[in-house]
Amino acid sequence: MVPHLITALTGPINELEQRVLESMPAIERWYRLEWMEHTPPFYCSADLRNAGFKLAPVDTNLFPVGFNNLTADMLPLAVQAAMAAIEKICPEAKNLLLIPENRINNSSYLLHLQCLTDIFTQAGLNVRLGHPDVSVTEPTVLTLPDGAELTLEPLLRSKRRLGLKDFDPCTIVLNNDLAQGPLSELQGLHEQYLLPPLHAGWTVRRKSRHAQSYEEVAKKFAKLLGMDPWLIYPMHEACPAVDIRDPAGLDCVQTAVDTVLAKVRRKYKEYGINERPFAVIKPDDGSMGMGVLTVRDAKELAELAQRPADARLGAGNDSADMASPLIIQEGVPTYERMNDAVAEPVVCMIDRYVVGGYYRAHADRGNDENLNAPGSALLPLAFATQSPTPKRSTRAVSKPLIKPLSSAPNRFYMYGVIGRLAMLAASYELEATDPNAEVYE
Amino acid sequence: MVPHLITALTGPINELEQRVLESMPAIERWYRLEWMEHTPPFYCSADLRNAGFKLAPVDTNLFPVGFNNLTADMLPLAVQAAMAAIEKICPEAKNLLLIPENRINNSSYLLHLQCLTDIFTQAGLNVRLGHPDVSVTEPTVLTLPDGAELTLEPLLRSKRRLGLKDFDPCTIVLNNDLAQGPLSELQGLHEQYLLPPLHAGWTVRRKSRHAQSYEEVAKKFAKLLGMDPWLIYPMHEACPAVDIRDPAGLDCVQTAVDTVLAKVRRKYKEYGINERPFAVIKPDDGSMGMGVLTVRDAKELAELAQRPADARLGAGNDSADMASPLIIQEGVPTYERMNDAVAEPVVCMIDRYVVGGYYRAHADRGNDENLNAPGSALLPLAFATQSPTPKRSTRAVSKPLIKPLSSAPNRFYMYGVIGRLAMLAASYELEATDPNAEVYE
Repeated sequence: MVPHLITALTGPINELEQRVLESMPAIERWYRLEWMEHTPPFYCSADLRNAGFKLAPVDTNLFPVGFNNLTADMLPLAVQAAMAAIEKICPEAKNLLLIPENRINNSSYLLHLQCLTDIFTQAGLNVRLGHPDVSVTEPTVLTLPDGAELTLEPLLRSKRRLGLKDFDPCTIVLNNDLAQGPLSELQGLHEQYLLPPLHAGWTVRRKSRHAQSYEEVAKKFAKLLGMDPWLIYPMHEACPAVDIRDPAGLDCVQTAVDTVLAKVRRKYKEYGINERPFAVIKPDDGSMGMGVLTVRDAKELAELAQRPADARLGAGNDSADMASPLIIQEGVPTYERMNDAVAEPVVCMIDRYVVGGYYRAHADRGNDENLNAPGSALLPLAFATQSPTPKRSTRAVSKPLIKPLSSAPNRFYMYGVIGRLAMLAASYELEATDPNAEVYE
Repeated sequence: MVPHLITALTGPINELEQRVLESMPAIERWYRLEWMEHTPPFYCSADLRNAGFKLAPVDTNLFPVGFNNLTADMLPLAVQAAMAAIEKICPEAKNLLLIPENRINNSSYLLHLQCLTDIFTQAGLNVRLGHPDVSVTEPTVLTLPDGAELTLEPLLRSKRRLGLKDFDPCTIVLNNDLAQGPLSELQGLHEQYLLPPLHAGWTVRRKSRHAQSYEEVAKKFAKLLGMDPWLIYPMHEACPAVDIRDPAGLDCVQTAVDTVLAKVRRKYKEYGINERPFAVIKPDDGSMGMGVLTVRDAKELAELAQRPADARLGAGNDSADMASPLIIQEGVPTYERMNDAVAEPVVCMIDRYVVGGYYRAHADRGNDENLNAPGSALLPLAFATQSPTPKRSTRAVSKPLIKPLSSAPNRFYMYGVIGRLAMLAASYELEATDPNAEVYE
């Protein structure tokens, strides 16, 4: 199913898209050179927001989910990318241990695990799944909606290695964001590849650190294309762990919100965008879309501070989260719709390659709200069935290489380009936060 | 359009397929290790023949054509593979010069060139086309069926490099099989990558040399799977350049045909195959399916020797070819049909990856005849839309990993595996025939 895009096709994003399509060889070469210097994360996904006037990633997931929503056509692409990844990391690999999240009662997540298992099996690995709960000592058989089964086996840790009974993997792939802290079983492994590494987990990661890397990457990319980087990044401010019931804490968050909103207002004025800016407040160390709050005025926070703790930063938040550091991000409205539901594209990547994507849609949320919340639906995004380039002529150098865009521009190439910027930012971020990084001075 | 396969689904090939599907991780790992030792050709295609009782490549093209017959869904796969190839060979590449064949009046070939141009553009290169006729001094504009244009520009050779006006490529991709001898412009290039290298052209290549490499590769692969290599390779004999009007020459060819037919007969008996064996005689240095002859008895050659020269080895053959060395190959009948036409699958590859395939069908040819002849039609083969693996469970090690195959087995994975064997054989072949090879002794 190909979603019907009703994105507003006017304004800067259309110019940006044209420039992106025209600059395809330069963009791909730029990526090629960046990947010579930086290592892509093993896999990831990026949530994009297309506001018509700007297109930016708002979240980058280093433990991506939803691969079961990729169209079947995209599977060979994912397999090929996984082959490239494995070949670089551990060409002799035979066995791969996949450690999933704890959400093993979610049938959609199980389908995602099955899809990952298929991808790595077809890439040439014996794949088995480890149970993320180390207290489980017997294999757990889970039944999928189609009747197929997945077995989670108890993890077996030896002094230097982690495996399963009769299964010694060379590669351990985490699909568990370690939000509850890294499993002690994962520490101090020798001669085993842990992908992504421990410091990609939320005990170490900070959204603001990623945003900082993304800004750096977006500015480099914007320079290449000769455009305003704001068109592709959300401005942000960070706030340390504060209590907003405390006046000093409230002031800190309000100041950050004011700063972001003032900057956005200036940009909206510059581009003649007739909308009311908003900011999104998120726990800086959070995942899964918990505790995300949309504000249009810093004053809203004073009122919020009076509310009971569990109503303060969205659903699913407990009072402990109030002590989290925060990121205050420019809100990017999404003008994409799936039927009547507000939607945002999610770009899925393995190694340096875009392997597909899907739409996250939510019928009960506004275009200024977080869609990664209970009630959201995921629908395949048909990257591959769209013509990736407008019809072109190959001409002698004196004539323009690209013909004017046809009436149906291809949004998906641009989505892949911006999604990869988020991946590149994650690469910068992981290099900067690597506790074992070698320092060359 | 997905072709309807009416291949006989009984006998050894079904067992082979099951073993191939079950051994997927081991097969992919085997390829991964082979590619650590050997460099894949830049791109290639393999013509396969599926006899129901055996599946084997009968021709490997290092200057592949027909990429325009890949389904649009496969394009991202080709782009990703081209990115991987370029990244390894020349990551800083900006410009790519593509030198086509002389068949520039063939609109199907022009669509293929347009497709190659698209693939390499999307992989991040500025692509321009050089005219293969060095006597042409002005740009030649060619119009495609859809109205798009391709421009072939005159080649400009400097002392050390080859390029076009205002275009200095780092990479030169040949889509010209050099059957008329290598262009002098291609010799002695410095610091430019010529892909594939000159010795991949038909002035150097010999089908029998490839067949020898293929046999070596097939035996290794068959050992991995514990099966008879004959199921995946055609037996062959080579004959030096002889004149079959000369009794000694005729005897040489007849002996080779007898040898091949006797070997095939033994194999047919071993497997209880109730068919009459045949052999295919081809010029050992030929391309494009010229001069290919099917014989079921060496005696047929005595009669053939009496015919006028131009009727001897099929259409399009001139008497000069009679002085060519010959390869006498076991004939592999094809039992695939597209509607009423006899068909054979062609697997297309870039770098080490299968990027798609198509069927070559010929309504006027028999299942024991060469289909690469005027009148053949090419139809997309939907590799990607078939489920690449049967539905599986991931289970604990004590249970079987693979469930019994469903009633619709997927032929395409096996085609990709066998196609890649031909590619690997080409890699062995090019290493063995490389005039600049470093010898370690």
